Amino acid sequence: MAKDLAKKLRVRFSPDNVDVIVDEGENLLQVAIAAGVRINASCGGKGTCGTCKVLIEKGQVETKRTPRLSEEEHEQGLRQACQSKVITDLSVYVPVESRLEQAVVSRERKEAPGALATGWRFSPPLKKFFVELPPPTLEDNVSDLSRLLRGLKQRYQLSSMTVDFDVVAKLGRVLRDGNWRVTVTTLVTAAKTKARERRRLLLTNIEPGDTRDKHYSLALDIGTTTVSGQLLDLNRGKVIAQDIDYNGQISYGADVITRIAYCQKPGGLRKLQQAVVATINGVIEKLLAQSQVNPKQIGHLIVAGNTTMTQILLGVDPKYIRLAPYTPAANFFPPVKAKSLGVNVGQQVYLFAFPSVASYVGGDIVSGIVGSGVYQRKELTLYIDIGTNGEIVIGNSDWMATASCSAGPAFEGGGIKHGLVATAGAIERFDINPSNFEPVIGTIGRQKPKGICGSGLISIIAGLLEARVITPNGKFNADLPTKRVRQGDDGHEYVLAWAPETQIGKDIVITEVDIDNLMRAKGAVYAGCQTLTQSVGVSLSDLERVIIAGAFGNSIDVERAITIGLLPDIPEDRFIFIGNGSLLGARLTSFSIDLLDDARRVANMMTNIELSENVTFMDNYVASLFLPHTNLDEFPSVAKRLSGLADNQSKRRLTV
Amino acid sequence: MAKDLAKKLRVRFSPDNVDVIVDEGENLLQVAIAAGVRINASCGGKGTCGTCKVLIEKGQVETKRTPRLSEEEHEQGLRQACQSKVITDLSVYVPVESRLEQAVVSRERKEAPGALATGWRFSPPLKKFFVELPPPTLEDNVSDLSRLLRGLKQRYQLSSMTVDFDVVAKLGRVLRDGNWRVTVTTLVTAAKTKARERRRLLLTNIEPGDTRDKHYSLALDIGTTTVSGQLLDLNRGKVIAQDIDYNGQISYGADVITRIAYCQKPGGLRKLQQAVVATINGVIEKLLAQSQVNPKQIGHLIVAGNTTMTQILLGVDPKYIRLAPYTPAANFFPPVKAKSLGVNVGQQVYLFAFPSVASYVGGDIVSGIVGSGVYQRKELTLYIDIGTNGEIVIGNSDWMATASCSAGPAFEGGGIKHGLVATAGAIERFDINPSNFEPVIGTIGRQKPKGICGSGLISIIAGLLEARVITPNGKFNADLPTKRVRQGDDGHEYVLAWAPETQIGKDIVITEVDIDNLMRAKGAVYAGCQTLTQSVGVSLSDLERVIIAGAFGNSIDVERAITIGLLPDIPEDRFIFIGNGSLLGARLTSFSIDLLDDARRVANMMTNIELSENVTFMDNYVASLFLPHTNLDEFPSVAKRLSGLADNQSKRRLTV
Repeated sequence: MAKDLAKKLRVRFSPDNVDVIVDEGENLLQVAIAAGVRINASCGGKGTCGTCKVLIEKGQVETKRTPRLSEEEHEQGLRQACQSKVITDLSVYVPVESRLEQAVVSRERKEAPGALATGWRFSPPLKKFFVELPPPTLEDNVSDLSRLLRGLKQRYQLSSMTVDFDVVAKLGRVLRDGNWRVTVTTLVTAAKTKARERRRLLLTNIEPGDTRDKHYSLALDIGTTTVSGQLLDLNRGKVIAQDIDYNGQISYGADVITRIAYCQKPGGLRKLQQAVVATINGVIEKLLAQSQVNPKQIGHLIVAGNTTMTQILLGVDPKYIRLAPYTPAANFFPPVKAKSLGVNVGQQVYLFAFPSVASYVGGDIVSGIVGSGVYQRKELTLYIDIGTNGEIVIGNSDWMATASCSAGPAFEGGGIKHGLVATAGAIERFDINPSNFEPVIGTIGRQKPKGICGSGLISIIAGLLEARVITPNGKFNADLPTKRVRQGDDGHEYVLAWAPETQIGKDIVITEVDIDNLMRAKGAVYAGCQTLTQSVGVSLSDLERVIIAGAFGNSIDVERAITIGLLPDIPEDRFIFIGNGSLLGARLTSFSIDLLDDARRVANMMTNIELSENVTFMDNYVASLFLPHTNLDEFPSVAKRLSGLADNQSKRRLTV
Repeated sequence: MAKDLAKKLRVRFSPDNVDVIVDEGENLLQVAIAAGVRINASCGGKGTCGTCKVLIEKGQVETKRTPRLSEEEHEQGLRQACQSKVITDLSVYVPVESRLEQAVVSRERKEAPGALATGWRFSPPLKKFFVELPPPTLEDNVSDLSRLLRGLKQRYQLSSMTVDFDVVAKLGRVLRDGNWRVTVTTLVTAAKTKARERRRLLLTNIEPGDTRDKHYSLALDIGTTTVSGQLLDLNRGKVIAQDIDYNGQISYGADVITRIAYCQKPGGLRKLQQAVVATINGVIEKLLAQSQVNPKQIGHLIVAGNTTMTQILLGVDPKYIRLAPYTPAANFFPPVKAKSLGVNVGQQVYLFAFPSVASYVGGDIVSGIVGSGVYQRKELTLYIDIGTNGEIVIGNSDWMATASCSAGPAFEGGGIKHGLVATAGAIERFDINPSNFEPVIGTIGRQKPKGICGSGLISIIAGLLEARVITPNGKFNADLPTKRVRQGDDGHEYVLAWAPETQIGKDIVITEVDIDNLMRAKGAVYAGCQTLTQSVGVSLSDLERVIIAGAFGNSIDVERAITIGLLPDIPEDRFIFIGNGSLLGARLTSFSIDLLDDARRVANMMTNIELSENVTFMDNYVASLFLPHTNLDEFPSVAKRLSGLADNQSKRRLTV
């Protein structure tokens, strides 16, 4: 009754031009999410990040002021959507800096062929078999299923299969529709292990006639920020379509911790589960549209994601991931029907989730290790995937150790005044003229700048450091003869672009608080690498290969990342980029049961080193809160270069 | 729109006092079924059986007259519900002979201890294990699932289990709610076979604390006519509650053929599936109420039913069962979550359906053979379950052959003018005074008679034959000095009870058409037994044991069944009654994995002999259409007795 009596109000969002009718008192961020208006909300609606600011053009909201909204912004009519209740009809403008762009710019480097798993046979876990059966007679009227299994045994020596219940249910009709000529699909559902000599086989589908030429599957990387998918042709071993989109969970929080917290609200887990499934369905739709493949011909789905993303997708509460001692629900999940999770595929499609190792070392890392073949090679390799968490593996074909360190959201634009994910208009390159301290910036898509993405941040800090605009402890040198360095709200700052040059009509700056956040992020990753190598008794300089995975890793300038002390100071030719390692592993595993077996072995083989309350890690972390590091012996080439630059600059000044 | 515009009409059913609002033009039988008014409809609503006659007390229906409605009945206001459309508001009276009684009278004989499976260990397929786990620490923070599996391995040497997805989903919460003391439930999902040395184990449930003392399962026999259930205590190996009800599918047709036909209508399969599930849910509810067991503590469900009942319950179209060459969809169905079928039990409960042998030799027979241990003994045994179909097995521990013959519905009251299922008021016993041909009748529940059930029919025909009221070819001797034998609508008939003595206010008679139908029914069963024994090279007189299964079998008088030629003429002490063999096997198998293994073996071991187009069977059948048989050598004791009786009667007449 109460609901029916609630006053109905109209909210119009621009520039999307979306109109919705809502009840009086509803939360404006929730209204936007429900209406499909994509608003950034890194903190999940707690009011602490300030990324969901919107302009109330007409009407009024009832709002709570937080420190994230300045007096000036408030007077302009800006409000934090998450803190606002709808109390009148509204016209709401979502400014460019609060929007999630529809298209994520994908700028993947080519995978280095030297960094792929080798030695596997092309033999997908999902196979199709065509069989012609003798029609039943009064003398031979065994059950339809017995006839089918007998035929498969005679023709292909297939036996001991489990048959999916749905196959039995439609068997009679399909056999007769196909005039006793049918194609069955089988799936390997459990890997070969020491204890179990044979792989488990499940008969997942039956189709009339010979459909072997239509044989597809999906590989998906479920990232905290983005979901990437590939449609695979299992006959040809090829990617025939790929697509990427933001994970719809972003509006509920930028990082896994915020999302785990959201899951604890009533209905929260279900909302987040539905959000990522909606994203997956959108990606699948686009893959199908690109390739003109019939959705019925999709037979399998392999996903790789971090432990939290995997659990939420499967509808398993991730609560204990964030509570000490940080236990995931399971590392190996049983296969589950994708449709039962809401994924828009046929009833025959099972979803296989890559096994994880620990709460913060997930299936995405196991997938990357499998895809990049780290576990197959003798060389001592560091595998590193930098995102909100830095996930690190060290090892070779004999052993592997892994750790995860919380880098915070800085590399994805979080906690940075003008931070942005890598999207059109984000500053990704930076140079500085050492004589007049004027910047040269490059943006994604060559658009007018609207913010700074992670790789831009590294470039900027390294450039400012080399030009001595900032000091090794991250403070601005306030005496320089330039208007670019000035006092701002958060201490000193450097102006990267003046308001008229930008999309947002405001000066884009980098502040001392930003630099501090970056130092903590890069420090955590470096200290993680250092602690992990120390714990296995080697040093970073022993590394023969460093594999950088992840979309962010792809756009990193290695020299500059070393300059700020994010990556270890070893020769550049030892670094290899593999792009989305998680997706890579999911794809290759879709092509080979050998790799499916290996995935299980790899997950079991990895030793997880818990860093969260590790004393050595804390020491290493504190020592790394410097540019590049408090101990310059760790970064000999950087030390040399910085002192050389200093000499040059001194010389140049003398000659001016 | 059309639907909304349909005129709404009120239909009141008495004596149930049920009121419903329906659309103009709806079918009256469907309206009754939907309203829960239990009307008999043997033919499934085709108009051919005449069992659904109702009295239209007020209002009008639009009806099609069929030969099943006499002129007199029509004038009285009786209509066949299945042939009538509602066109005005109605008051409808359902006469007693058209009603399905709520309670089925269960008069099971005690199972003969000599006819039970032996040599099995008490070791239920469903087991509970209590385990105390060390809580996680930072040094030991493996996943919750790994911790659980490790604990089960250490404490109970359990390994290589598959874990149900739903268990993984709730694992984290249950482990912590139970303070790391939990009880898990495991289920053997696949039997040990030659090819597979180990039974497959599935972890189906986890509960906080030690719940081992609450450990229950359900055994169900899904009969075409009735559903019988038992609630089992798996700790004590005991039946703690039992119940029986009519299969709700009866209103859609009395026999499997009619129901298979109904499944071919749009939505038909789903309706029948829901009807039997509703019956099962009612039975479960009563079992729980009787025993005060908490429904959450039910862990498993074993059902046995004929092939059609099994397929419909599982939602698998039984279409090809009735089309030559009569193939079932499968003999072995994968375990399925009972809840997914609509059964009102917890998400953890899997349903195991007894495997079948052929389209007309189902899981009920396999279950009976397992339960009665026929496959374990050296003695040559005939196992016979008489219902709408006569299902027959012959064999011993070395071999078994099986066949099924369509007896038609006569034994369940179908096709008999005053036929009834075994319910209160049904005539079940009959004697006749040979001097004046007056009957002595006994009814179930000692109520006034309202019809004749199967065992009554056998008694009546045998009695009439012995008294020479009918001749061996089933015709009345019209010259007898009694008003009881008279000319009726269907030829001659014998009046069993005069109208004032009955519940229905009409003379209850047995007609020549009834006798004909009975002869065909008993002839089919006997010819089936004869053909099956001949086909394996033995004769009926070689039989060392005859096991009679089924509720109907239970109430048979063996001597009289031999007299009419239904059962073979061998000494009475070789006959053993086991009551509901199907339920017996389901129960014993719930108690022992040994019998679960055996069920698979038994189903594979049986050779099915198809009788439907078998020439020998047809010859045997034609020869058996006589009382007791055209070849009196088959029934030596009957021949002797009948001639003896004849002598006595002649003598008695002489002395009168």
